[in-house]
Amino acid sequence: MGTKLKIAIVGSTGYGGVELIRLLASHPLAEVTSVTSSSSAGTPISQGFPHLTGIREELLDDVTPETIKAKADVVFLATPAGVASKLAPQLLEVGLKVIDLSGDYRLKSPGLYEEWYKKPAADERYLEQAVFGLAEVYGDNVRDAAFISNPGCYPTATLLGLVPAVKEGWIDPSTIIIDAKSGVSGAGRGVSLGYHYSEINENLKAYKLNKHQHVPEIEMVLSDAAGKPVVTTFSTHLVPMTRGIMSTMYATVLGDRSAQDFIELYRSYYEGRRFVRIRPEGELPSTKEVWGSNYCDIGFAVDKRTGRITIVSVIDNLVKGAAGQAIQNLNLMMGWDETLGLQFVPAYP
Amino acid sequence: MGTKLKIAIVGSTGYGGVELIRLLASHPLAEVTSVTSSSSAGTPISQGFPHLTGIREELLDDVTPETIKAKADVVFLATPAGVASKLAPQLLEVGLKVIDLSGDYRLKSPGLYEEWYKKPAADERYLEQAVFGLAEVYGDNVRDAAFISNPGCYPTATLLGLVPAVKEGWIDPSTIIIDAKSGVSGAGRGVSLGYHYSEINENLKAYKLNKHQHVPEIEMVLSDAAGKPVVTTFSTHLVPMTRGIMSTMYATVLGDRSAQDFIELYRSYYEGRRFVRIRPEGELPSTKEVWGSNYCDIGFAVDKRTGRITIVSVIDNLVKGAAGQAIQNLNLMMGWDETLGLQFVPAYP
Amino acid sequence: MGTKLKIAIVGSTGYGGVELIRLLASHPLAEVTSVTSSSSAGTPISQGFPHLTGIREELLDDVTPETIKAKADVVFLATPAGVASKLAPQLLEVGLKVIDLSGDYRLKSPGLYEEWYKKPAADERYLEQAVFGLAEVYGDNVRDAAFISNPGCYPTATLLGLVPAVKEGWIDPSTIIIDAKSGVSGAGRGVSLGYHYSEINENLKAYKLNKHQHVPEIEMVLSDAAGKPVVTTFSTHLVPMTRGIMSTMYATVLGDRSAQDFIELYRSYYEGRRFVRIRPEGELPSTKEVWGSNYCDIGFAVDKRTGRITIVSVIDNLVKGAAGQAIQNLNLMMGWDETLGLQFVPAYP
Amino acid sequence: MGTKLKIAIVGSTGYGGVELIRLLASHPLAEVTSVTSSSSAGTPISQGFPHLTGIREELLDDVTPETIKAKADVVFLATPAGVASKLAPQLLEVGLKVIDLSGDYRLKSPGLYEEWYKKPAADERYLEQAVFGLAEVYGDNVRDAAFISNPGCYPTATLLGLVPAVKEGWIDPSTIIIDAKSGVSGAGRGVSLGYHYSEINENLKAYKLNKHQHVPEIEMVLSDAAGKPVVTTFSTHLVPMTRGIMSTMYATVLGDRSAQDFIELYRSYYEGRRFVRIRPEGELPSTKEVWGSNYCDIGFAVDKRTGRITIVSVIDNLVKGAAGQAIQNLNLMMGWDETLGLQFVPAYP
Repeated sequence: MGTKLKIAIVGSTGYGGVELIRLLASHPLAEVTSVTSSSSAGTPISQGFPHLTGIREELLDDVTPETIKAKADVVFLATPAGVASKLAPQLLEVGLKVIDLSGDYRLKSPGLYEEWYKKPAADERYLEQAVFGLAEVYGDNVRDAAFISNPGCYPTATLLGLVPAVKEGWIDPSTIIIDAKSGVSGAGRGVSLGYHYSEINENLKAYKLNKHQHVPEIEMVLSDAAGKPVVTTFSTHLVPMTRGIMSTMYATVLGDRSAQDFIELYRSYYEGRRFVRIRPEGELPSTKEVWGSNYCDIGFAVDKRTGRITIVSVIDNLVKGAAGQAIQNLNLMMGWDETLGLQFVPAYP
Repeated sequence: MGTKLKIAIVGSTGYGGVELIRLLASHPLAEVTSVTSSSSAGTPISQGFPHLTGIREELLDDVTPETIKAKADVVFLATPAGVASKLAPQLLEVGLKVIDLSGDYRLKSPGLYEEWYKKPAADERYLEQAVFGLAEVYGDNVRDAAFISNPGCYPTATLLGLVPAVKEGWIDPSTIIIDAKSGVSGAGRGVSLGYHYSEINENLKAYKLNKHQHVPEIEMVLSDAAGKPVVTTFSTHLVPMTRGIMSTMYATVLGDRSAQDFIELYRSYYEGRRFVRIRPEGELPSTKEVWGSNYCDIGFAVDKRTGRITIVSVIDNLVKGAAGQAIQNLNLMMGWDETLGLQFVPAYP
Repeated sequence: MGTKLKIAIVGSTGYGGVELIRLLASHPLAEVTSVTSSSSAGTPISQGFPHLTGIREELLDDVTPETIKAKADVVFLATPAGVASKLAPQLLEVGLKVIDLSGDYRLKSPGLYEEWYKKPAADERYLEQAVFGLAEVYGDNVRDAAFISNPGCYPTATLLGLVPAVKEGWIDPSTIIIDAKSGVSGAGRGVSLGYHYSEINENLKAYKLNKHQHVPEIEMVLSDAAGKPVVTTFSTHLVPMTRGIMSTMYATVLGDRSAQDFIELYRSYYEGRRFVRIRPEGELPSTKEVWGSNYCDIGFAVDKRTGRITIVSVIDNLVKGAAGQAIQNLNLMMGWDETLGLQFVPAYP
Repeated sequence: MGTKLKIAIVGSTGYGGVELIRLLASHPLAEVTSVTSSSSAGTPISQGFPHLTGIREELLDDVTPETIKAKADVVFLATPAGVASKLAPQLLEVGLKVIDLSGDYRLKSPGLYEEWYKKPAADERYLEQAVFGLAEVYGDNVRDAAFISNPGCYPTATLLGLVPAVKEGWIDPSTIIIDAKSGVSGAGRGVSLGYHYSEINENLKAYKLNKHQHVPEIEMVLSDAAGKPVVTTFSTHLVPMTRGIMSTMYATVLGDRSAQDFIELYRSYYEGRRFVRIRPEGELPSTKEVWGSNYCDIGFAVDKRTGRITIVSVIDNLVKGAAGQAIQNLNLMMGWDETLGLQFVPAYP
């Protein structure tokens, strides 16, 4: 065990943090050596998460750069918005590598961050340094990076479903409409009436239409792929389930292309990338088919009557949408096979 | 009780049939005098539906026009596609009034029916006779009709959300995209792997993209409202809940109109119609807020960045999307207040 | 409307309060004239409960005896433990009739209340005055009472399933074990991690074994039925659903009696009481079969191998376990038919 | 890969079969070399289970001893009751080792099997040969066995919670009452109205009281532990969730023993067995805390008022209750560490 890469997790009392613990437990080359919490330092993590009984019984560490530096080589930040903007620079300064799962370093423009997140932005020098880790699109940038900003859950499902078509100019980017649906774990562990069981069960809600903080992140990447500014219509819905995101995406097809053409384009674009699975014609992925795994599954339907394509993309929001992709980025950063420790078969049913 | 209108229900062993029984139990001017089933005639309905124990204990009647005529004045057909096309004419011939909850008489073109339903269409004379009972849009046609074709669940939620804007020319009908989501009861009581609990729970599925048999019904009404042919993109999703439909609808706004403008337009269009509730600006309806009731709640968001409107419309698929609207049509047909027996408060939570 | 009995509801921002509003909306002889809230007075109730949009739009009243007295004849208290103990006497003093849905007046011994509820008990004079309204058991006491203490949800399901057998001496009361399971709405609308959606969904929890505050209430009635002190083993479980309670109860049968014997005993005991439905031999009730209704359904299995009976009793915790039984008590108190306004068919599915 | 133990799975189109595939995918010393199906031979398994897309794409093999023998060393039978009774002898005859997940070889008495399963029993010679693989109780018998009968899901949760106390004489075995609750995946993938989504969601059902086929299996082991015949009261309930079993067990405590005494007894009994986790006093396990893992978590409450203990034991029915324990038995059979390939952290939330 001594030769494994040492990992610290900050924010170990949220769902992103415990999912990192779950996934890293079977990583062959890395091990979690410190789990920290500013609010619960000194208590065992299994107290708040009894499913970790007998698995991780050590006490939660304090969140100070020195403590962490003494125990770890790489830090995952699974903290709410506004924490990493202050903490990441301190960790980088003491020589730690950092993978931030929050939104604090995804947008390169501080103004854009402040507009959508309603919080002070991070220091611009660090914003520039942070590599946006959408692994299948920007994976090459991740190699050898010291600071990675892990994409959001909605952007991951959405962008993996749109980038190849936008890049290739097969759809009109000005017509893109994204109807996204998420399980409730994406909202985290903080309690509020909006996530109270009796309010959510047997209920379907739409929320934050065109106002979700993931909008600028999606548009940033689509604009990059299109080579020109793209704005989109983006809706989010809360579905009565714990895990899973589905993005149903609509756009006008440019040229006379069939679903099969798109399937081949995407298979070619994602060749060699194990975690994106392009479904055969006539087959659409459902969220349970990726539950607990790092896969992103994508299906297509082209409607000749309207000239539009519908693209359906699904992920597990806590894995490919958070902890799993973060580990994938760790693998890429270290020059390892990106699938290390992530070759889980989805849990079905 | 003797002076109440006598109602027969055909197809009493499905969810539409028992929902009619539930709702009609508190109707002040109508009463169910015969529940029939071709497959289970002679057995008590509470055998298959123990929740009716002590409420309806009589035996299921046979489905013959004469038997029904002897017991009832009006017949509700809550049967699978392909049954009413044969049965309704026989019932009408013996002088019964008929409200058909299936899709057999919604499309006026036999060819269109056969293309989308993959079954032989009903006789054209009866297709012409059947009044399409989207109550808040075609209510005037329903009065004094002898034969009503009750709209589908998806079309009801969708059309109530689109018709005023299309009619008024406030949105471009060629840009309409409909992302619809439904609870599982819409699929009925017939068992299949696709509705097996372990396959549906904690899962979100897309299905029948642009192929759902409700597409032509939606386009028929939108074309009527627009005064020209309209084709739409229509997606359906299965949500892990029993009841509820949400249609999230997208279109390009014509002219410079705000969400508040749309709210006022819709409030004016639906004035005096108790079952459509237009939500105030900034508020979006969720499916649980209409659970068990005949309401259709509609909310709006206009995005200046893209020039598009997003309209969110929700119903209980078994009430406003089936049994409730059928009773509303009965009320209109009889010249009664349309809300009779339907003034249920949604069951929350 | 002017001649209807006027009802005020205190605690209108909880689930018990809105369920009273839902049920009373169709009561033929009573109407809600005031909904009050200490925390939200002055705001419309539909703000916190959008499902009431267009149904109840008036502002919430303040909770003062004078305000209430000016508007109502009878008050329902749907407040957390510890509120009614102070408020009920004030309301009674100004001449209002009171039906308390909380636990504050169920236990006649202040010491017992303080031991199990960990709060100061109500004044003993009022404890004596309050009639325990388990309608099918103590209904006669309710008639003409001015102050009724409505039973708890678990006790209602449990006691209706046990009282006839205990009273008749057909089971050994010292062997009674109660394994109760509840949907989450029983915990109310107050948020906490224990009722956070992602913690409850796809999860089954046991809690408060032998420590639930409903234990002494159950034992009070069983002791009364047995004519001697009874102590029981009582377990509670949280089931991932919103509504419904099931009590599975075990006891040793005295004498050689079959399930059919018990069925006949219970049918005889509950003769004329519409809301208790005794199931035929071999049939066990499920919670959905009473969803949204005031029924309590009971089934039996006797095991010759062990000499034990298993009794399964189900209710909707918000209806027969709270608001519905409170209205049933109102009906009894007023000398009306106990089923007035409560003849709902369960919502299935 | 060449040196790994080769595994065939029979019954790969059920939930037990795909769970074996999921778990074995990360086993360091074994690999699945053949997946078979009598009904779907010749089609890819990912056709029926799209979550296996890109993971297992080979065609399903036929179920013949020769075919299997050519590809595998050990066979897991994940087949419905009545299949293994015929198939296992054939597989053993050609020299394969067999682990049967069905109930066909658990009961040593053919008469008992036929009484509870209503099917012809297996050949008595093979019944004798099959080792009952309740790993933490009979693990020693498993070592070097060629034929293992894997315990049922309910018996596993129940027996791990009862055996130490019964063996030690700390509870009166004649007083044992077992109230068990299961998620729906335990019923398998075969469709029927009883497992139709709309019938199960938001519903809690009791079924097969004292008649479940797992009763004799439980009593067989309890009798062995007690050294005398034990009969029990055993109830089963269907909970609206996919995975998870909870057994809540009641018995009279012999002698003056506290919960802490039982905790220490169980910790001592299960010392060194990683998959049983005894919870500290005051803590009760919930099913989600073992979701997707091979753990069995057990908690205790002793009630001085009644002299009874309540024991709560939880497992994931598809892992510790089926595929996981089967792999644990494989590990024991091969003389490996029993945790190989099974060190999953539960998926939470």
